[in-house]
Amino acid sequence: MSVIDQLSQELSRFPGIGPKTAIRLVYHLMKRPKEEARRLSHAIRDLADRIRPCRQCGSYSEADLCEICSDPGRDGSIICVVEEAFEVGAIERTGQYKGYYHVLGGHLSPLDGIGPDELNLKRLLDRISNSEGGVSEIIVATNASVEGEATAVYLENVVRSLGPRVTRLARGIPVGSDLEYVDGNTIAEALSGRREM
Amino acid sequence: MSVIDQLSQELSRFPGIGPKTAIRLVYHLMKRPKEEARRLSHAIRDLADRIRPCRQCGSYSEADLCEICSDPGRDGSIICVVEEAFEVGAIERTGQYKGYYHVLGGHLSPLDGIGPDELNLKRLLDRISNSEGGVSEIIVATNASVEGEATAVYLENVVRSLGPRVTRLARGIPVGSDLEYVDGNTIAEALSGRREM
Repeated sequence: MSVIDQLSQELSRFPGIGPKTAIRLVYHLMKRPKEEARRLSHAIRDLADRIRPCRQCGSYSEADLCEICSDPGRDGSIICVVEEAFEVGAIERTGQYKGYYHVLGGHLSPLDGIGPDELNLKRLLDRISNSEGGVSEIIVATNASVEGEATAVYLENVVRSLGPRVTRLARGIPVGSDLEYVDGNTIAEALSGRREM
Repeated sequence: MSVIDQLSQELSRFPGIGPKTAIRLVYHLMKRPKEEARRLSHAIRDLADRIRPCRQCGSYSEADLCEICSDPGRDGSIICVVEEAFEVGAIERTGQYKGYYHVLGGHLSPLDGIGPDELNLKRLLDRISNSEGGVSEIIVATNASVEGEATAVYLENVVRSLGPRVTRLARGIPVGSDLEYVDGNTIAEALSGRREM
């Protein structure tokens, strides 16, 4: 196989990159200075060599503990539980949350053979049980999908018995949306979760 | 800069990959076995190390001469001129063309400072002048854009004086199209280029 075909094949493994896009990317790379391709190659190798799961929260990290877990200035009484590591970034960017995180690495999905043992769950229960200052709240920030909801309900059951209150992100009308275009389930959630003005 | 940011930045240099897509690709790569990232890294390095322009046609090649230029079984009397190397593949896949190719590496675009000297043009004229069996036809397969047309007209002028006839790809209704959705310029070209049935 030619080096061009080889690279196209590797690139088309990415989600959202089909064979035609892959070929287009390869040709783009060939038009650019070789130094650019070498930098990309190094950056990918560095990623493979240096990134590992954070020992505490399961997020990606270059060290044994990730930047957030190794920050003593955060609020140790709250842990926000997300499905995937990149969702930590989405919450961090709001600048509104100062607690710690825990990354499950997915959601419960019995049909795909993903049960509680396949998720990074035991480590979460250990964190709650062994916390020095005590964990008072678990914010469940799983996705608003069927699997995410099922995972949230499961989490609530196993976590509540250990002590902390369990909350979840509010459901409602996205900021900036026209009511006309919001689906009925979301409006129903927004109604039942309505707040005093 | 973290290795994650570094790789996102490199990936977002690709056309059609913005910062958000880049981050998504990086996280996808981190979820996959490390071996996959290493294979991708190697494939990119191989591309940078082994691909160079074909000495004759300017297409990409792993050898001094590309596969097509080094194939003695093709028709040496015809050269098809394309703007970019990946367009060679598009024509090859039709299986309808048995001549050789020449890759200009772009199109004339005075506003961007791309004149005849910036294209792989002199080599084409040399090929025509120095051909052993003689070149009888140049097929101009530049894009059907304003710049592609301008490049075609320029090519016609400089090539015709050397002897070969100069043809270009037919303009017309794309196969499988409803006339209703074809733009007026294309219909006009299809009309003026109509053929006996």
